[in-house]
Amino acid sequence: MTAISTVVDPGTRIGIEDAALRHRANRVIPGGMYGHLRASGLPEGYPQFFSRAEGCRLWDVDGREYLDFMCSWGPVIAGHKHPVIEAAARRQAEQGDCMNGPSARFVELAERMVGLLPHADWAMFQKNGTDATTAAVMIARAGTGKRKILLAKGAYHGAVPWCTPSLAGVTAEDRAHLIYFQYNDIESLETAARQAGNDLAAILVSAFRHDLGQHQELPDAAFAARARALCDAEGAALVIDEVRAGLRLSLAGSWESLNVRPDLSAWSKAIANGHALAAVTGGENWRRAAQDIYITGSFWMGGTAMAASLATLDVLEQNEAPAYLQRMGQRLRDGLHAQAIRHGLAICQSGPVQLPMVLFEDDPGQAKGACFAASALREGVYLHHRHNMFLSLAHTEKDIDQALEVTDHAFSRVAAAF
Amino acid sequence: MTAISTVVDPGTRIGIEDAALRHRANRVIPGGMYGHLRASGLPEGYPQFFSRAEGCRLWDVDGREYLDFMCSWGPVIAGHKHPVIEAAARRQAEQGDCMNGPSARFVELAERMVGLLPHADWAMFQKNGTDATTAAVMIARAGTGKRKILLAKGAYHGAVPWCTPSLAGVTAEDRAHLIYFQYNDIESLETAARQAGNDLAAILVSAFRHDLGQHQELPDAAFAARARALCDAEGAALVIDEVRAGLRLSLAGSWESLNVRPDLSAWSKAIANGHALAAVTGGENWRRAAQDIYITGSFWMGGTAMAASLATLDVLEQNEAPAYLQRMGQRLRDGLHAQAIRHGLAICQSGPVQLPMVLFEDDPGQAKGACFAASALREGVYLHHRHNMFLSLAHTEKDIDQALEVTDHAFSRVAAAF
Repeated sequence: MTAISTVVDPGTRIGIEDAALRHRANRVIPGGMYGHLRASGLPEGYPQFFSRAEGCRLWDVDGREYLDFMCSWGPVIAGHKHPVIEAAARRQAEQGDCMNGPSARFVELAERMVGLLPHADWAMFQKNGTDATTAAVMIARAGTGKRKILLAKGAYHGAVPWCTPSLAGVTAEDRAHLIYFQYNDIESLETAARQAGNDLAAILVSAFRHDLGQHQELPDAAFAARARALCDAEGAALVIDEVRAGLRLSLAGSWESLNVRPDLSAWSKAIANGHALAAVTGGENWRRAAQDIYITGSFWMGGTAMAASLATLDVLEQNEAPAYLQRMGQRLRDGLHAQAIRHGLAICQSGPVQLPMVLFEDDPGQAKGACFAASALREGVYLHHRHNMFLSLAHTEKDIDQALEVTDHAFSRVAAAF
Repeated sequence: MTAISTVVDPGTRIGIEDAALRHRANRVIPGGMYGHLRASGLPEGYPQFFSRAEGCRLWDVDGREYLDFMCSWGPVIAGHKHPVIEAAARRQAEQGDCMNGPSARFVELAERMVGLLPHADWAMFQKNGTDATTAAVMIARAGTGKRKILLAKGAYHGAVPWCTPSLAGVTAEDRAHLIYFQYNDIESLETAARQAGNDLAAILVSAFRHDLGQHQELPDAAFAARARALCDAEGAALVIDEVRAGLRLSLAGSWESLNVRPDLSAWSKAIANGHALAAVTGGENWRRAAQDIYITGSFWMGGTAMAASLATLDVLEQNEAPAYLQRMGQRLRDGLHAQAIRHGLAICQSGPVQLPMVLFEDDPGQAKGACFAASALREGVYLHHRHNMFLSLAHTEKDIDQALEVTDHAFSRVAAAF
């Protein structure tokens, strides 16, 4: 993700405080910033540093307010500083967070996830989404005694040597046992499985296809069923990476509507509404393997994030979050669709509406998308031009409509510029 | 770490609530618990679940109070719920934790670490100690274009496939480029370096030797200097794993007193007094490589843990933490030494006093150690029988003396039983 040029007003500038912090950051942080939150991957004018968040709104360090559609790239599903969730976290923090063993929240949360997820008989908790996907791969290998992992070309499953998108610092051996298929392409999946032969440990697959800069795709039922059948035939683990999608499509697991249940699922992001937590859940057949591997972390048993997660799951259930997010997402999608037609612009909105993805047709380098997003930003709406976005329970119809007023202007700008 | 038998009173029992939670945990968590905080690795009677923590004291779920010498296995360096640190964390949480980018705390904390550590020109933050050691290895490989990592046999550097102590779920390729040496053994280090030839990326070495169940060893000055020279000769990175030792021996880096500076250091545990945070720090020569690798995490930019870390570093500096912990540790070591002699028992206390390590001589399976620790536990002092312990700023002379009263009884018990 390198800096991109955008067609925006020459007046689009980051704020004074943001610029000052970037200057300081450049001295003491490699590249001034790293990872998926780098503003250098965003159109001009996007702030790098934030001072405050509340509900679905963010303020940058220069005090500019944004109606936000990224939700910290997923974690914030109930809205920033949700009073019930934060109160639960605070209560636990006041008792004890990082102790010589877990609090009772650990057991309660494992029970809660097992209760929510039909596929799950047990849960284990970590801190990063990458911890969860890595643990799932280890469990699959420990349980099968096999090595090959099938995964979709272009899918993101984390940022350690076996899966990070860049090859810097990665050795060939880190990926020696990965075999790639095309998402939703049964033939390529079967070819990959044949290539694994009798060394197939797992098929690792995202809840839906959400590759950077590509149209999103929900899984085809036939593809999902074939993945399940291939794993059954070989005794391999079907692992769903729910890190990005989890809890927005369904509280029972994203493939539940397809009647396909995974052996293992990897969770993070939204499960504690922004508190650092990840989880692997699994079925009975994989319990022993999960017990056999050795994984741990200094802060994994911290009770505060677990208390936040318990409260998050309650809030999501009480508010029927997936259905609510679906309604808000549909309202946004319908509005954008009508606006684009009105402005004579061709856009493609793909995948589940709860994770909006808006790409312009005929837009190499996403220049139109960048113009669109930068224009919206100037009027206080924070969108992403080539990554899926996220909705939260804090987004109301009024917020969606307010955003649509702004996107209408942004479409005008695109129509005028291209 | 499997359950061990201990010579203790038959009346040593875990509490009713603890037993009930273990029963529930066994249904929904593989093995009922995982990782380094498993009570199954501890003598009989040790609780698994905790309800409260304050200063250097912990309460289990049955309300039993313990004077604690594990500090959550390192993270708690200023004492649980330190008012200044928790106030700083709360202030940041009330503004915003996990946002679309970092808060100003990110830059301030990087500046703070660069200011503290003579070797460091930059810092990057993560969540787990394993994130930091893994990132350091990636940076070393990216910077050198080479692959081999030299590390000490038996050393713990984290819990993912390339380094976890168990081989379950690990493939041979995960460790294809590791070469082992003996800590403090220059000849074995040189042999390992020769084996790496011109493919040497890094020497990864703990701040001191702290292997489970083994006597601790501070690094010899000659060994440290040789590690530095070998890296210089090959253009490789000298990486110090400060995850466990960091900030307890020195606020300037644990090898500073040896006049040996690393290229990269990995930090976690104590840097935010129990809030989930890790860091890699490095010198100018490695900035470009650090910028080239792609690492990230959903919660890495969370401001709350960074605010806690800034406050922690202030508290440690204001209280001259290493010297204070050194005084308390020496008081404990001297007291235990005198008591052991009085009881006619041979113990060995090794390594830095800030991380107390007490092993009985002639104690295969650490049965005496387990008897000692279980006896102390019954009188409310939480020790470890085969892992190093940790002191915090919350441990006062009075606490040390109170613990010594209890250890005196525990030594009697060992003397009587063996």
